[in-house]
Amino acid sequence: MILGLDVMGGDHAPGVTIAGAVDALDALPQETKIALFGPRDVILTELGKHNADPQCFDIVECPEVIAMGESPIRAFAAKPYSSIAIGFKFLKNKKIDAFSSAGDTGVMFVGAINNVERIPGIIRPCISTVVPREDGKVNLLLDVGLNPDCRVDVMYQFAILGYIYSKYILKIPEPKVGLLNIGAEEKKGSILTQSVHQILKDASELNFVGNVEGIEMFTEKADVIVTDGFTGNIVLKQMEAMTSIIVRRGLRDSYIDSFNYENFGGTPILGINAPVFIGHGKSSAKAIKNMILASQEMVHSNLIKNFKKAFKHISL
Amino acid sequence: MILGLDVMGGDHAPGVTIAGAVDALDALPQETKIALFGPRDVILTELGKHNADPQCFDIVECPEVIAMGESPIRAFAAKPYSSIAIGFKFLKNKKIDAFSSAGDTGVMFVGAINNVERIPGIIRPCISTVVPREDGKVNLLLDVGLNPDCRVDVMYQFAILGYIYSKYILKIPEPKVGLLNIGAEEKKGSILTQSVHQILKDASELNFVGNVEGIEMFTEKADVIVTDGFTGNIVLKQMEAMTSIIVRRGLRDSYIDSFNYENFGGTPILGINAPVFIGHGKSSAKAIKNMILASQEMVHSNLIKNFKKAFKHISL
Repeated sequence: MILGLDVMGGDHAPGVTIAGAVDALDALPQETKIALFGPRDVILTELGKHNADPQCFDIVECPEVIAMGESPIRAFAAKPYSSIAIGFKFLKNKKIDAFSSAGDTGVMFVGAINNVERIPGIIRPCISTVVPREDGKVNLLLDVGLNPDCRVDVMYQFAILGYIYSKYILKIPEPKVGLLNIGAEEKKGSILTQSVHQILKDASELNFVGNVEGIEMFTEKADVIVTDGFTGNIVLKQMEAMTSIIVRRGLRDSYIDSFNYENFGGTPILGINAPVFIGHGKSSAKAIKNMILASQEMVHSNLIKNFKKAFKHISL
Repeated sequence: MILGLDVMGGDHAPGVTIAGAVDALDALPQETKIALFGPRDVILTELGKHNADPQCFDIVECPEVIAMGESPIRAFAAKPYSSIAIGFKFLKNKKIDAFSSAGDTGVMFVGAINNVERIPGIIRPCISTVVPREDGKVNLLLDVGLNPDCRVDVMYQFAILGYIYSKYILKIPEPKVGLLNIGAEEKKGSILTQSVHQILKDASELNFVGNVEGIEMFTEKADVIVTDGFTGNIVLKQMEAMTSIIVRRGLRDSYIDSFNYENFGGTPILGINAPVFIGHGKSSAKAIKNMILASQEMVHSNLIKNFKKAFKHISL
């Protein structure tokens, strides 16, 4: 197994990306390799700082860099030798098994869609976040940003993606699926959520437990919480805002610590044909390390095979 | 000035409602009176527990009670002598200047719309919440639940309502107005927020500062944060969930304490012809007291007159 990493992605690249890769290699099984995508001289310099042997990594020379905020479409056309463009080519050609970057989300998404493509049957891929619970487990919230406007069938597919992810990655045998909504009754909420509620209610395979209100987000009511990408992103950022305020004010607590994004490293794009992970722009070495480990887990778990199986009847 | 209170509204009524009314009366100016709507015998018994003189209150006999979760439309038809139905009739006939209740939100909203009606020009009334900031000030977020599906013009009106509320009630001379959105750039977000962004950008009277991301909700970027009622309600409940977790885990902090809903008591319905306040179902005596005081402030500030002035050109 070879796990690809964009060395130039993120606010603190390449220092933290190389540091994270060096740490990840220690934690990975012997037979798993890490492929570093970036300018060779930069990579060698950074590896040198850690006294790391370059022979332990696959180094793929990528002389160009796509900056944060560049137009995704233009970036790929203008910079075919960038670390992200070459990384995705390797992933497409199966020279690597997964590709991770803390670079621009839009660029990563466009690269993923254009290179590894959607799993047949999937209308819109999405991204997720884990929501820590006080009992030490986590809930999965999705979508958290790729789809600000959602259709009913798209959100139904999020529920399926979330259910399978929760089962195979988060190891919850029969995940409970809930719908983020305002009010407990099925007639409450927006036209969209009222309609999604009806679809999920009829989907007996999904173990649907009904609406999850904002106040229940951190409880065990549902293991998978389905929402549109607009609401999900607001929730994600608010969670980040509140936990960072708490930490900044010096309030120490093990549960609040569990919200630290570094623990999860990055989020996979769900619904495409290969594991692609997007890291937080401000990623630390710890976050990069955990993103690489998460990509290993996703390859190892055969998640995508299970996605394909679930959507097979839809794509026929 | 006479401030009306539904004695039977809320999970802990009538104990806390009467206790809150007794405390509020102490804090109000001499010439301000409180009218209590509920069964006379219940009111007298509860007042007796506080050794409060019934002569100090206007007691309005209302033998019926609307329970939480009753269908709003049916409730008013079936229980014309309920505290909420009679309270709204008094408000309509100007026998009281404001009406507050910690009863069912849906019932309160229907009662408000049917009795005191919308201010001419207003398409959809809304409710708001204050969002505490670390500098001790508060931001205003609206809508937080009345309108799960919003049109562009409706959200433009929320911005106007929020601006005026912020100016006259929160005493911010020139409030900055922001739009809750995912991403800073104007082309980010849902179709709805992208469109609202364009309208607000052109509204020079509103002091529009652009998009406010979830991570910026607690900062001074904007004093008024405009959103649809679905997103706003999720944000409100998530805020409540996280702060209650923090308090429950014994983390004490003055800033976190400022999130306590009891400090604000209740939220006014903005955009109707008279002050109507809705309290939290779980309202304590302190919350009821502060809701009554807030209704006094709203009458005193001439807020509705200023709303009417702002929407006059629209209603012509």
